[in-house]
Amino acid sequence: MTTPEGFAAAYQAYVEGGWNGIGASEALGGQNLPEVVASAVQEMLHGANMALGLCPMLTAGAIEALAHHGNDALKATYLPKLVEGTWTGTMNLTESQAGSDLSQVRTRAVPENDYYRISGQKIYITWGEHDAAENIIHLVLARKPDAPEGNKGISLFLVPKFLVNEDGSLGERNDVTCASIEHKLGIHGSPTCTLSFGENDGAIGYLVGEEGRGLNHMFTMMNEARHKVGIQGIGVAERACQHAFAYALERRQGRSPKTRGGAECSISDHLDVRRMLLSMRSRTDALRALALYCAAELDTARHAENDDARQTAQARADILIPVIKSFSTDQAVDIASMGIQVHGGMGYVEETGAAQLLRDARIAPIYEGTNGIQALDLAGRKLQRDNGEALTMLLHDVAATVEQLSADSALKALGSGLAAGLEDLKAAQALVLEQGRDPEIGPDAVQAYATPFLNLTGHVLCAWQMGQAALSAQAALNNGSDDPFYTAKMRSAEFAITQWLPVGRAQRAVIEAGMQCLSEFEVY
Amino acid sequence: MTTPEGFAAAYQAYVEGGWNGIGASEALGGQNLPEVVASAVQEMLHGANMALGLCPMLTAGAIEALAHHGNDALKATYLPKLVEGTWTGTMNLTESQAGSDLSQVRTRAVPENDYYRISGQKIYITWGEHDAAENIIHLVLARKPDAPEGNKGISLFLVPKFLVNEDGSLGERNDVTCASIEHKLGIHGSPTCTLSFGENDGAIGYLVGEEGRGLNHMFTMMNEARHKVGIQGIGVAERACQHAFAYALERRQGRSPKTRGGAECSISDHLDVRRMLLSMRSRTDALRALALYCAAELDTARHAENDDARQTAQARADILIPVIKSFSTDQAVDIASMGIQVHGGMGYVEETGAAQLLRDARIAPIYEGTNGIQALDLAGRKLQRDNGEALTMLLHDVAATVEQLSADSALKALGSGLAAGLEDLKAAQALVLEQGRDPEIGPDAVQAYATPFLNLTGHVLCAWQMGQAALSAQAALNNGSDDPFYTAKMRSAEFAITQWLPVGRAQRAVIEAGMQCLSEFEVY
Repeated sequence: MTTPEGFAAAYQAYVEGGWNGIGASEALGGQNLPEVVASAVQEMLHGANMALGLCPMLTAGAIEALAHHGNDALKATYLPKLVEGTWTGTMNLTESQAGSDLSQVRTRAVPENDYYRISGQKIYITWGEHDAAENIIHLVLARKPDAPEGNKGISLFLVPKFLVNEDGSLGERNDVTCASIEHKLGIHGSPTCTLSFGENDGAIGYLVGEEGRGLNHMFTMMNEARHKVGIQGIGVAERACQHAFAYALERRQGRSPKTRGGAECSISDHLDVRRMLLSMRSRTDALRALALYCAAELDTARHAENDDARQTAQARADILIPVIKSFSTDQAVDIASMGIQVHGGMGYVEETGAAQLLRDARIAPIYEGTNGIQALDLAGRKLQRDNGEALTMLLHDVAATVEQLSADSALKALGSGLAAGLEDLKAAQALVLEQGRDPEIGPDAVQAYATPFLNLTGHVLCAWQMGQAALSAQAALNNGSDDPFYTAKMRSAEFAITQWLPVGRAQRAVIEAGMQCLSEFEVY
Repeated sequence: MTTPEGFAAAYQAYVEGGWNGIGASEALGGQNLPEVVASAVQEMLHGANMALGLCPMLTAGAIEALAHHGNDALKATYLPKLVEGTWTGTMNLTESQAGSDLSQVRTRAVPENDYYRISGQKIYITWGEHDAAENIIHLVLARKPDAPEGNKGISLFLVPKFLVNEDGSLGERNDVTCASIEHKLGIHGSPTCTLSFGENDGAIGYLVGEEGRGLNHMFTMMNEARHKVGIQGIGVAERACQHAFAYALERRQGRSPKTRGGAECSISDHLDVRRMLLSMRSRTDALRALALYCAAELDTARHAENDDARQTAQARADILIPVIKSFSTDQAVDIASMGIQVHGGMGYVEETGAAQLLRDARIAPIYEGTNGIQALDLAGRKLQRDNGEALTMLLHDVAATVEQLSADSALKALGSGLAAGLEDLKAAQALVLEQGRDPEIGPDAVQAYATPFLNLTGHVLCAWQMGQAALSAQAALNNGSDDPFYTAKMRSAEFAITQWLPVGRAQRAVIEAGMQCLSEFEVY
């Protein structure tokens, strides 16, 4: 697998700059910077090139899994190189019959001496094979011959592309090969591989963590991986904004309305185009605010001294992450598509670059758990397990923002807009909890309402963050600032709460309409 | 320009089958079938292959323009071959500085003998050059050297690829060449050309219609061309539905909820997947119903004996067409994207075919007047010119459907859902009319509210059509039918009115939120 021209060099520059380890612990050679900083850096990386950004993103997942579950020998051999970025990591979960349902994994792991022989085929392996780093460390879900059926028979194994000698130097090529790469809609620079393990003697692999707990070990890092996919969406959305804004300012066409002078103008003067631009900007601002808020909660969950503070922050992050993964990526697809529209005919021509952003963004609602799976995670597991307590606590903070906004005469309208959204979300939450705990219809209800419920939650939490932004911007303006950043943020917040939130609020009606037509509909 | 393998043969088969002329008059060798039939055929053609479907679609536009405005000699020479399909037609409007604003057209037409010498460059010319037919007839907007600036200086010319001899045989190659073809996001099978006219002596062209009325002549056929683009969207949406339904029935993953048996199941058993499937199906049903309703109005506008009936139908079609062009194509993009999501990871791999539908569909909101231009046409020209009268008359029919639904105890909920949408649309119409006629803020208001107003109109009219469908289906079921078509239509109507319409209704709030943030937002 030869990466596109410039990719290996760009990756090397990234590694040499020390960017790969910014979030990892100092003991491993990382910089131990907070997640909130790492997230901001990741956004820029994905905004620059999502296909390339995927490589370190997958490595970070491998680091996480290994740091939590690997034994000392594995950690000593593999972690420093992964943190440095001279070796990269992959996640080998999916098989053709095992996608959203990983219990169907069939890849075999046969014990031999102090390792295992792995054989089977994995599909959709991002950066599964490439020439941009010296070694590739595959983390692979597989099953011992005597393992039970289902989730409990699945273990996690580390399978390096090149075996590693005692002294850390690279040895023989392991028995894992790239059988093919996919021709995809987008992220063309990211090789999506089918990997064959054990076409000859069996690939040598090492058990990570406990036998039979492979899925649990994977899910340790899944939360953060999902947060990172949300960040990817935001990176592409920001890129689409910058691209569309630049084009709209440059492209001259038509005349502005009388109130704006009536002269020949840039299309950025047309209010219909401005609606697209502000919609893109406002949504991107809001999604970023929510994702960074969540990153801060993850930092608190890791580092707060107080047990309670850690647990509260983790519970909050658990609620936020499916929303961030799913809502950010759905919105990113729409924002990238709107960016094409701003460009008119030029947007449909590949050389302009706008179309690539839609093609790239479109994977994000699918991988790392489809957005439907995220919605089930929120409305099912996360909401039902504590009877909505963590979300309810979060909504207390939203209510506090409503009060602050309503107390400021300049921000009152935002207060009442947010209040209305909050009320809808509470009503929807009550409905999903009530029907969800019914032992007969519960699982159906959760499935049926999951997507609209997540969508409503996303809208309200984004509007909340923009309410907070409006409070900060208004305070700066009241203090005499004339920084256009603050006035732009005010317009962005106004749009988010008065023109975007209403669309999300409609999801309450969707939920209240019930699930009968969904379950009675005959698919043929 | 060599078309992809099989394209020329497929086009020949289409021509030989007589499909190209189904809508054209018998005098020209056509079948004179109603627009409602032609539209249904076009949908299937675009569903099969939108890139190929574009070729006859453009030819139909050329036929229309020529039939209405060409002199007898031009008609006799060119129309029969175009109707047959042995020659194809193109529309040459856009230049790099003249996109949505065609007043900027600079292509020159210099009179010489009984023809003109045309020189200049046109971009984005669909099927501008190809090997699937013997000749290509370009209709070109250009300007005489002494013509006034702006719209009134633009005339329409016919420029054949091969000049036509007196006896109808093909003569010399005309001075028009394909300078390049675009690398686009989709419709790869449709060559999008930059055409150079007059690189040597000047291309020979013939005036069509009156000097200085080129734009008006183009707009004669624009209405129908826009309706056809809406139909394209519906064709792709239907294809996406069929594709997603087939995959969801086949793909086995996970277990159904207890109420559905709890066994291993197809993903079409998961309610979250069913929500996507029914959403795709319901929206496609609704868009088709509205587009065919409009086609019937176009037939009435052409063929009714009574003047009043013709005018009323034309006024109604005038209102409907921007909605059908814009709303169908926006929805088609979303439906095709949802089709990808149903496929999960497979949807992102090009060989599956789902991704192509998104790539193809994405052009439709851009060409033949961007969807923003459609919205301005509706909220500006069409609504303001008769003070909303034609729309108001249409909404009387919606109100009649509300009454019929409300009178049937089984359909009451649909009646009240549609009534609520109707009320929102009336309120939005009143607001847009009131602010639109204000000489100071009018043009701004129309621009600012155009897109949400069109979106709301589309939702309400689609819901209306599905209300009508529910009435018909219920009547059949009451008469004892057990055809699953009717029960499927009932579910589709229920979804459209109770779960889709609410999202559109939110656009009333968007309009009522005003335009201040849009006009004050600083684009930088």
